Amino acid sequence: MSSVELPPMDVAARIPRLRASDGFASLDALLVTRLPNVRYLTGFTGSAGMLLVARDEAIFVTDGRYEEQAHEQLGAARVDARIAIGTTAARQRELLQQVVPAGTHLGLEAHGVTWAQQRAYASEWFPEAELVATEGLVEELRRVKEPAEVARIHRACAIGDDALRAVAGLLVDEPTEQEVALRLELAMRERGASGNSFDPIVASGPNGAKPHARPTDRRIRAGELVVLDFGCVVEGYCSDMTRTVSVGDPGADARRLWDVVLTSQQAGRAATRAGVPCAEVDAACRRVIEEAGLGERFVHSTGHGVGLEIHEEPRVAGTARDSLAVGHVVTVEPGVYVPGVGGVRIEDTVVVTADGADPLTAFPKELVI
Amino acid sequence: MSSVELPPMDVAARIPRLRASDGFASLDALLVTRLPNVRYLTGFTGSAGMLLVARDEAIFVTDGRYEEQAHEQLGAARVDARIAIGTTAARQRELLQQVVPAGTHLGLEAHGVTWAQQRAYASEWFPEAELVATEGLVEELRRVKEPAEVARIHRACAIGDDALRAVAGLLVDEPTEQEVALRLELAMRERGASGNSFDPIVASGPNGAKPHARPTDRRIRAGELVVLDFGCVVEGYCSDMTRTVSVGDPGADARRLWDVVLTSQQAGRAATRAGVPCAEVDAACRRVIEEAGLGERFVHSTGHGVGLEIHEEPRVAGTARDSLAVGHVVTVEPGVYVPGVGGVRIEDTVVVTADGADPLTAFPKELVI
Repeated sequence: MSSVELPPMDVAARIPRLRASDGFASLDALLVTRLPNVRYLTGFTGSAGMLLVARDEAIFVTDGRYEEQAHEQLGAARVDARIAIGTTAARQRELLQQVVPAGTHLGLEAHGVTWAQQRAYASEWFPEAELVATEGLVEELRRVKEPAEVARIHRACAIGDDALRAVAGLLVDEPTEQEVALRLELAMRERGASGNSFDPIVASGPNGAKPHARPTDRRIRAGELVVLDFGCVVEGYCSDMTRTVSVGDPGADARRLWDVVLTSQQAGRAATRAGVPCAEVDAACRRVIEEAGLGERFVHSTGHGVGLEIHEEPRVAGTARDSLAVGHVVTVEPGVYVPGVGGVRIEDTVVVTADGADPLTAFPKELVI
Repeated sequence: MSSVELPPMDVAARIPRLRASDGFASLDALLVTRLPNVRYLTGFTGSAGMLLVARDEAIFVTDGRYEEQAHEQLGAARVDARIAIGTTAARQRELLQQVVPAGTHLGLEAHGVTWAQQRAYASEWFPEAELVATEGLVEELRRVKEPAEVARIHRACAIGDDALRAVAGLLVDEPTEQEVALRLELAMRERGASGNSFDPIVASGPNGAKPHARPTDRRIRAGELVVLDFGCVVEGYCSDMTRTVSVGDPGADARRLWDVVLTSQQAGRAATRAGVPCAEVDAACRRVIEEAGLGERFVHSTGHGVGLEIHEEPRVAGTARDSLAVGHVVTVEPGVYVPGVGGVRIEDTVVVTADGADPLTAFPKELVI
């Protein structure tokens, strides 16, 4: 794909933004343990690290394996946090205890620490602190993407588009689902992706009736619906796209399902813009499918936010209570699934604007290839 | 790799084994939410599902996406559990409430549920039950592998061996680390792996000083140490192996590091057998490296269990308190890391026997290729 440099992200601005956020107001400090949040706030990409953000200082604690990497990555991002290395859990506890005086209102990420961790923090790590269950403080910041983040998601989406362009032609050779999945992965990696954003779904014929089917050694034949749902990662940011295709005409019943889902997906995209409740986008998709008498076959919600995680806020679901805002990146992905027969799903990743939504995935939507 | 059928696993025997375990004795029911544990007990491979094991019944709850898959997989394994579909969290709550009467001593996996989930279970899902924090009840069962599980890990290890055999020759062409990693992945997939057990590490020259380095676009030159740490998945079971090699002679200093680590790894393997404390295996590796004056360069523990997860019990660490038993599958992987210079790590996955440990990884250990 394009080898144009991606614009730099202002990682160092994020810890100050966290401190200034509403959710932080009642805290003296927040212990950030969810790795995507640690990465967002520091640029650190390792598999073990905790960030304690207090009002006047921040300390990043990791183990000996990551000493060099931590200095490189936090240094490159000019993040204002002290790096401390603790090779054992006991030593990491000591390092953090030094910056958590008695009486500290210490926020934990209640959705990110296990119950066992919380019990250890309460009884052994910070017995003199008051632990506060917080929910999604950093995720709240992450909802609205900076332009440089959108650029990374867009790059990942473009790689996905281009990979499908390279691989779609193979379908005429009756490959297995697994072969197609592997080719897609390889094509994305060759174009600069660091990995998949999730294991690709390639589900043909009756396998398409499982929304989250895993590729099998089933051969894909002409006239069958094939659901291809895949994405990749660029500098930590994910893409997500689904197309449903057929080699040759899949017959009138399949064409009808496909038309219904495409109309639903278009309705969802048309409803997507800043200020609209997420539940309304879900309703716009669902209405089309219900009117076609297929409401019970649409067994999942319409979409989800995409960023450093493949599933993040906001959720585009009937039960969602929040609204879209400029800079949200979400998927719109209605589907119908008929057990024993097959399925259709069509999905784009889009970035929300003041008056609509710009698609980041651009591969054409055509049933017959 | 070998296309010989893998022997069937007796998945259906595992729920009864859980009920009969010591950890279950004080419970009326256990809510299993950690996905590897759900898979172990039911054969279900999807990304969302909970299993409630009571004394006289078991109920598996998932959402509409997985209805068909749940019936297929639990049916194929002949698991004695009722399948219930709840498309919303509220509906799933209702389904579970029906089998959790007031006063139930309900175990949660304290290491597998978040604090937020525990709070919701306590206040909304099961306000009349007594929640009990359990730790590792299913993991305890999973430590000792059935022969059919060892066969799967062995298959994954053999695929890794064969993939490295196919890829090692490329190192003479000065490939980038990323190119080597991608070729390894592809070679494992072509040989029947369903995926990586973790992102491969290919770390050359100074990058080798980071134990968990990610592959970069750095070109690998002759005379440099290259750490290759990778594994794959077969039917859910992981493999793990590290080799450190050089194209041509890397010089006397590097040869010395490599010799120390190989001697350490051999000492660790020699110490591995049923009845030996895990900490003794760690000590056996560490002693060799300390005697060489490199103790501070061995910045991680010696190894870990391998199975449905790439890191599981038992840990082979100085702080571990348990002992090895027949059927444990563990890694032995000492390493030394010199910032700015490079690193060496050598690792096998082995299965513990009464009088030793059989290697599951078999690729030769030779420095110069």
